[in-house]
Amino acid sequence: MIQHLAVLGATGAVGREVCGILNEGRWKVGKVTLLASARGAGTRIDVLGESIEVREVSPRSFESVDFAIFSAGAERSRQWAAIANRAGAIVVDNSSAFRMNADVPLVVPEINPIDAAKHKGVIANPNCSTIIMNMGVWPLHQTNPVTRIVVSTYQAASGAGAAAMQELKTQTADALADRPLSPQVFPHPCAFNLFSHNTPIGPDGYNTEERKMIDETRKIFHEPGLSITATCVRVPVQRAHSESINLTFEKSMSPQRVREVLSHAPGLKVVDRVEENHFPMPIEASGRDEVLVGRIRQDVSQRDGHGIDLFVCGDQLRKGAALNALQVVELLAQR
Amino acid sequence: MIQHLAVLGATGAVGREVCGILNEGRWKVGKVTLLASARGAGTRIDVLGESIEVREVSPRSFESVDFAIFSAGAERSRQWAAIANRAGAIVVDNSSAFRMNADVPLVVPEINPIDAAKHKGVIANPNCSTIIMNMGVWPLHQTNPVTRIVVSTYQAASGAGAAAMQELKTQTADALADRPLSPQVFPHPCAFNLFSHNTPIGPDGYNTEERKMIDETRKIFHEPGLSITATCVRVPVQRAHSESINLTFEKSMSPQRVREVLSHAPGLKVVDRVEENHFPMPIEASGRDEVLVGRIRQDVSQRDGHGIDLFVCGDQLRKGAALNALQVVELLAQR
Repeated sequence: MIQHLAVLGATGAVGREVCGILNEGRWKVGKVTLLASARGAGTRIDVLGESIEVREVSPRSFESVDFAIFSAGAERSRQWAAIANRAGAIVVDNSSAFRMNADVPLVVPEINPIDAAKHKGVIANPNCSTIIMNMGVWPLHQTNPVTRIVVSTYQAASGAGAAAMQELKTQTADALADRPLSPQVFPHPCAFNLFSHNTPIGPDGYNTEERKMIDETRKIFHEPGLSITATCVRVPVQRAHSESINLTFEKSMSPQRVREVLSHAPGLKVVDRVEENHFPMPIEASGRDEVLVGRIRQDVSQRDGHGIDLFVCGDQLRKGAALNALQVVELLAQR
Repeated sequence: MIQHLAVLGATGAVGREVCGILNEGRWKVGKVTLLASARGAGTRIDVLGESIEVREVSPRSFESVDFAIFSAGAERSRQWAAIANRAGAIVVDNSSAFRMNADVPLVVPEINPIDAAKHKGVIANPNCSTIIMNMGVWPLHQTNPVTRIVVSTYQAASGAGAAAMQELKTQTADALADRPLSPQVFPHPCAFNLFSHNTPIGPDGYNTEERKMIDETRKIFHEPGLSITATCVRVPVQRAHSESINLTFEKSMSPQRVREVLSHAPGLKVVDRVEENHFPMPIEASGRDEVLVGRIRQDVSQRDGHGIDLFVCGDQLRKGAALNALQVVELLAQR
């Protein structure tokens, strides 16, 4: 039972997804408070049979709140987390504000639930691409340590928010009608195009999204030395991220063993129907809780069977954000 | 000077691209004969200022033809190559029919032009994804041997032909209007979706496209033992393929050195504007001869600087097919 849950950023893509998941009725929630900036305040959203008005977040918003899911960007998380904590609310933060702080657990409930207990008021939800990759890699890492990950992503518009999803639709219609394209949310045209993830590039040449995948995976796995390289790419897909993952294992690893391990892992669904050429696809991952995994095969470029290739697809708004945050709340509420 | 050039499959996406490139006037061509199956015959295509009628291919089609570019699928290539050869025409074949035959050179003119001289009537044009990857990898391999390639592709609809390009447009319009999607050319919906390359999967789990990238690269590079793994994915993009490439070198390799080598390599354009977050994109590669290359960075997952990550984009119909074939014809015509 979750007594009183607040959602900051309720009118955003992730906030609305939190409400949508609550409406599916799998969790008992006593009371829901919806919060946003002044711009979003006044909007009404249906949650658990009630039309709830979104209120502007204020220092008094968190009184009597047990858990607050923050999904309004890193700046607002920094602004409101301590205030929520002082009011007695535990914050599950979907932004990147606190993820790498040593005293903030970074939690995927299927992977490191025990880390959640160490919180000091804030628990961070990992980056969406990180969660989706880790769901497929962690169960294997438990069986046979993974020593290197090479990942290339195919990321949906939803990662950049509701406005980006709308831009993909509008701009695609413009492209089909041969109208000029004028990107607003993304720096480049997204219709029938793809581009390197639009986050700042560090001195090492990696963009912030890639750096998150590397650093957060190491933290979640408790493997500070794990070798990872990532290439993050935005593709014209609405709301599920795909990732092509190449793994190196400490010992040899067969595709049969990988399939067996993944088919028993929580939150995953193996979609690997070779005869029908049917593998994980964004349209089939969209709206689903499970991360789909397939294209499981021995990497022929590595000696002695130490390599495995696989492909995952996960709903960016669900397991990549809203669902994971709610699972963390559930984990804490059970204690 | 190319005396008499025939194009078999003239009404297809690649055939039309061959005509389009000829119309740009960079090559002198005496006569052009356009050929297709009965279905395509009768179509008129403007080439070099003339409206040329496409004729149905017959045993007499190749009389007086010096060079014939075949782009009508593997089956037709097998059917007509020997007939064209007997009539005195040299065949540059864009299909997969002969690529791995020991007595058929597989040629990218910027890489292995001398192989072209060894032909016995047929020269094969490599697979589009192979050409586009090799354009970026070969110049580096010359400088510091590449020992392993891990590649993930983002392939355009054009690789499946003109009907697939039309399906992407039509189906995307259907998706925007919430009409039901009914894939005809592709096995899965392509609008706002992506899927594993729709070619048969071998017993090792690799699909035919991936197998081509591995085997053809080894043949073109004359490196039968080169370690390569590939994951080929179709994305909702019209006509340029993108590829995320992870390289391992024999010796350490700096991004500066990679940038220097690639900026002097033929047929490549380095697009690596970190400050502006501007890297190779399909819409900018489309209609261009050069393969774009960027996101050049040291792979932090490999020790001692032996790894490099990069990203390439190339027009699938041009350098991936029609342009490469015409370059091979030019190479032979110069002899």
